[in-house]
Amino acid sequence: MASHPLAPLTASEITYAANLIKAGWPAHTNLHFKVITLEEPLKAQVLPYLAAEHSGEPLPRVSRKAFVNYYIRNTNKFHEAIVDLSAGRVERNVLLGKNFHANGDGEEIVAIEKVALEDEGVKAEIAKLKLPEGTVVISDPWIYGSDGIDDDDRMYQCFLYMRDPMNSSEADSNHYALPLPISPVISTESMTVIRIDTLPTGADNTIKEIEPYQIKPPNEYIPEYQKLRTDVKPLNVVQPQGASFTVTQQGTSSVLAWQKWQFRVGFNQREGMVLHDVRYDSRSLFYRLSLSDMNIPYADPRHPYHKKSAFDLGDAGAGIMANNLKLGCDCLGSIYYLDAVLSDDKGGVTPMENVVCIHEQDAGIGWKHTNYRTGRAAVVRSRELVLQSIITVSNYEYILAFIFNQAGEIDYEVRATGILSTQPVDDGVEVPFGTLVHPGVLAVHHQHIFSLRVDPMLDGYKNRLTYDEAHPMPRSDFNPHGIGYYVEETVVEESGGYDLDFDKNRTFKIQNAAVRNPVNGKPVAYKIQTPGFQKMLADKDSFHHKRAEFADHNIYVVKYKDDELFAGGKYTNQSRGGHGVRSWADRKDNVKDEDIVVFVQFGINHVPRIEDFPVMPCEILKVHMKPVNFFDKNPALDVPPSEQNFNKSVLVSQAHQQPSTEATVGGKGEVCCSSKL
Amino acid sequence: MASHPLAPLTASEITYAANLIKAGWPAHTNLHFKVITLEEPLKAQVLPYLAAEHSGEPLPRVSRKAFVNYYIRNTNKFHEAIVDLSAGRVERNVLLGKNFHANGDGEEIVAIEKVALEDEGVKAEIAKLKLPEGTVVISDPWIYGSDGIDDDDRMYQCFLYMRDPMNSSEADSNHYALPLPISPVISTESMTVIRIDTLPTGADNTIKEIEPYQIKPPNEYIPEYQKLRTDVKPLNVVQPQGASFTVTQQGTSSVLAWQKWQFRVGFNQREGMVLHDVRYDSRSLFYRLSLSDMNIPYADPRHPYHKKSAFDLGDAGAGIMANNLKLGCDCLGSIYYLDAVLSDDKGGVTPMENVVCIHEQDAGIGWKHTNYRTGRAAVVRSRELVLQSIITVSNYEYILAFIFNQAGEIDYEVRATGILSTQPVDDGVEVPFGTLVHPGVLAVHHQHIFSLRVDPMLDGYKNRLTYDEAHPMPRSDFNPHGIGYYVEETVVEESGGYDLDFDKNRTFKIQNAAVRNPVNGKPVAYKIQTPGFQKMLADKDSFHHKRAEFADHNIYVVKYKDDELFAGGKYTNQSRGGHGVRSWADRKDNVKDEDIVVFVQFGINHVPRIEDFPVMPCEILKVHMKPVNFFDKNPALDVPPSEQNFNKSVLVSQAHQQPSTEATVGGKGEVCCSSKL
Repeated sequence: MASHPLAPLTASEITYAANLIKAGWPAHTNLHFKVITLEEPLKAQVLPYLAAEHSGEPLPRVSRKAFVNYYIRNTNKFHEAIVDLSAGRVERNVLLGKNFHANGDGEEIVAIEKVALEDEGVKAEIAKLKLPEGTVVISDPWIYGSDGIDDDDRMYQCFLYMRDPMNSSEADSNHYALPLPISPVISTESMTVIRIDTLPTGADNTIKEIEPYQIKPPNEYIPEYQKLRTDVKPLNVVQPQGASFTVTQQGTSSVLAWQKWQFRVGFNQREGMVLHDVRYDSRSLFYRLSLSDMNIPYADPRHPYHKKSAFDLGDAGAGIMANNLKLGCDCLGSIYYLDAVLSDDKGGVTPMENVVCIHEQDAGIGWKHTNYRTGRAAVVRSRELVLQSIITVSNYEYILAFIFNQAGEIDYEVRATGILSTQPVDDGVEVPFGTLVHPGVLAVHHQHIFSLRVDPMLDGYKNRLTYDEAHPMPRSDFNPHGIGYYVEETVVEESGGYDLDFDKNRTFKIQNAAVRNPVNGKPVAYKIQTPGFQKMLADKDSFHHKRAEFADHNIYVVKYKDDELFAGGKYTNQSRGGHGVRSWADRKDNVKDEDIVVFVQFGINHVPRIEDFPVMPCEILKVHMKPVNFFDKNPALDVPPSEQNFNKSVLVSQAHQQPSTEATVGGKGEVCCSSKL
Repeated sequence: MASHPLAPLTASEITYAANLIKAGWPAHTNLHFKVITLEEPLKAQVLPYLAAEHSGEPLPRVSRKAFVNYYIRNTNKFHEAIVDLSAGRVERNVLLGKNFHANGDGEEIVAIEKVALEDEGVKAEIAKLKLPEGTVVISDPWIYGSDGIDDDDRMYQCFLYMRDPMNSSEADSNHYALPLPISPVISTESMTVIRIDTLPTGADNTIKEIEPYQIKPPNEYIPEYQKLRTDVKPLNVVQPQGASFTVTQQGTSSVLAWQKWQFRVGFNQREGMVLHDVRYDSRSLFYRLSLSDMNIPYADPRHPYHKKSAFDLGDAGAGIMANNLKLGCDCLGSIYYLDAVLSDDKGGVTPMENVVCIHEQDAGIGWKHTNYRTGRAAVVRSRELVLQSIITVSNYEYILAFIFNQAGEIDYEVRATGILSTQPVDDGVEVPFGTLVHPGVLAVHHQHIFSLRVDPMLDGYKNRLTYDEAHPMPRSDFNPHGIGYYVEETVVEESGGYDLDFDKNRTFKIQNAAVRNPVNGKPVAYKIQTPGFQKMLADKDSFHHKRAEFADHNIYVVKYKDDELFAGGKYTNQSRGGHGVRSWADRKDNVKDEDIVVFVQFGINHVPRIEDFPVMPCEILKVHMKPVNFFDKNPALDVPPSEQNFNKSVLVSQAHQQPSTEATVGGKGEVCCSSKL
């Protein structure tokens, strides 16, 4: 059976694409593949396919294509290619120019670590630290960043740490608690150390000679080194009749159905989870939903820290860094796992097991009303469907989730956790751009700025972006007491960046003006509720600002163009800017009642607390998308009432908090809110 | 055994207080009691008591006192009294002056409904509607509000609705879907209708003659009238070893202990849940936490709607309106309920069963890190303790909860649900201050502005309020690339109102400058993360603005004074302002390193969606309080690792989503993140 046009590449498609590329080069040419992934068909081809699919008509043929990035290994020859898998030919294969560099990959990063630690010059610098015998030094390769100074070539900047020297055999010792002031720079062409930076460790940018290391205490996060609390009792989530969702696996593509929702789940090296063709009760809502990119610029202006500004999707990849999720560890309840297959650096495949976990969760009360005259309460609980993926980016973790509920709402949730990126600091030094989180350890302030890509299809693909504002009415005969206010809607006509304004209750909505609510005649819409945050602090002339094209506005709206998926541009590593959403918005396209794409930015300015170390409690961010006059009443009105015979709750007695028999035989547990049913 | 000084009044204390008041009046004087509640002792008395309590020293004697409000029934003679229960005497008993009015109470509201519906004049107006035979008309008494026009006396404004005329026997028919244009005004002195307002139903403020009612469809919310979805499968929360918390009931007071947290729970007529003496790991954090008040002003400027501005705590009471929570309906899992006893209008007692439910919930992953070198993941789940209370204010519901976690964080959560306050509107009319949610039904825009009272005691009661801001560094030799930024702390010196500023990442913190973090020397602190919202829209000269003294700033800080608990003033019903937090802040007290109180405002501008009718899906608001350099590392570091043998998750297979046996016998379920343990 033919793959769905939006299905990720199969293992054989990946290797076939690689072989077609290899065949174009002399034998024994050593190619370093960076990505081999689905080249999504033009939307103009997919829309009729989806229409046919949903109406049961014969499906048009859409050819399968692969997008390929590769180098001639250990050269700067970086290529972008499109392979037509259906036709069995390379459709396009171009050498990219100056300042276009590929993401890092696992094999490369391990090799870079090795180069750094085996370099004689680096060893000589480390020797000056006079570390205890047997100390294990760790190298964390960092994306080099951009400052315009001798940085046209592709490089890595490594930061060095060590395991607890008193416990060197502990492979999971938290080396971030023991940073060292030495930073080797490595060329990916020569795979040699081309420079060794010494790090500033004082309050200013003075670089001191490397001195013998003053022994510092460790700060471990693994459980063996903690006195664990013993008073947490088990809490199990049990679904005796199984889960309420169904997953239909169609090759590498999965169709999910749950509580009137239906959508297709894909997975790729860069974005990880991608949702396509999101529908509710057979009405189309979104053509495509995915995390587009994120940027993490740091506050320390001193060399080489001034270059620290990561694009974790563009520079590495949310798919390839996805954790293999474990039942009962990462996921609680009745869990369904999705696997994926991605490419490796040699044109082979990397099987990715359990990269997405799917489960339901209770989200408290969904709605309730009590008629105080009769005492009757009507109450339903809110059930949610969660698709979760967790990525590890060296020191840091992101827990990424799409969450659906029974009221037609979608949340995108990010949980930031993991370990802070740390650097050495001299005793007694205080700086206004970082927090001392451990003796000798500075955690520098940094921003996390995320961009969620929303490609809407609200009852059709011609949509508009609007925003509502609430304004006080002037005093008048109509408003004599000065209390009136009104809501005014503005239609966004032109592509561009737009911002929240809480003082005006500015609320962005995606609308289909051609489809009206049957009751009140308003255009059907979804509103976007996104939390306030401080945008990019780096100045407009800085490389940080130029590169993070999404970081300066809460909302960007552009007219749809195929191949414009990544808000920071397709190639973010050591990028110069000019290829992301800010540049697309500058086209000043008409976006009123067109095929539009909305990029929603959110984030935090992470001013580290000592409580964020040695590992950080999740900081939770959520973007909500909610129907506004899209339905004709509360879509969760038909959720069955919350009842004890369904929920099986247990009454806890005072003594020892043991379940009391009373509960199961009624008593307080007996009378139930919808007892009239 | 003597009651704890902070324990709510017992039933006998309530009746004793009432009897002492009654004894001061001639026999047969008919008193209408509004509230008989604990008069909390002066903080100066409680602090030494708590110190003795926690150090196991002999407890100082603190006399028990009752706060009493009452009328000579059906007069304007409104009294405030303090009764010394220990001494058995009335300590103070004063007649309050003009424009001081009491809250409504249940018995009164039922009586007002009756007066409205039995009034001949009202019947005559209703007759003009020519409603079908047997139609049941419903009267919703509303707090009268203030406009300065003949409103010195205490009144109610009633809004009339009807049940579905085709189904008049349905006592739970949603009458808010069938509003009528007649609004009787009733005096609580004469208990008679003193005026009948006709409501504007057009786009302007024209008042039309009452015309025969054009029959409209119903819009029911109760389950019998829905085609319920059938595909939600049960989800049970099971704690086989019981809950992790303990409740120690000390008379009317309950001491809760959970995961290093300890606090005392009280409950009163006005605030409902009150938390006292909140400690973590024996360190004091908060003297008192409670919802102080809320204000809901409406946008329609036309008479009589311009007076709609409710203070649901001050005008009615979050305690007395608390729902009797049902196991398995309002609460899922292993539940412990708290009961309370409040006063009634005759000086007797009203037993309040199950007004607070206490349970644990899983909150997803608490923290995680994977060492990509060894592949070892360390992960813990986040367990939360929830204290939930639900209040019904006529048409509307609020679900109020304090939520504690294992990382030393406290959330205060509000879920807004229930039914919109509706009014009749002519066919085809559109107004910018409301949404048509059903044929003939207008739901007017309104604000919900909440005030959370935080009385801090971070390692002692002398605290300060500060705020951090992040600013870009100017370009310089130190910041040559324009990317640097720094965080600057400002100490709030004077009582006043302060606001968020997302563009500066302004973050408010409560600090104890006298206690320093052992590692980084920073003052111990808790930060307040509160969402942005649009503040009071009514203009500064309006009664709405004058009365809602908390509604114009995100944060108010004042120097502690006994008896200053309620941000909108002690008496909000038909209030004029001048007695709330804005007025207290105007004292310009020094609040640096003093005993301070912080009022945190949050809310929404509710622009109704048709999806909010006939009953509204919960709109969720959260205020977070998080430690900042209060501990010396992640307080949740000692949470045991998340493991399958503890969590008992189940692997779901594709076919029919049934639990697969595979899961329990290992396979994917076997390998667990902390398998090394």
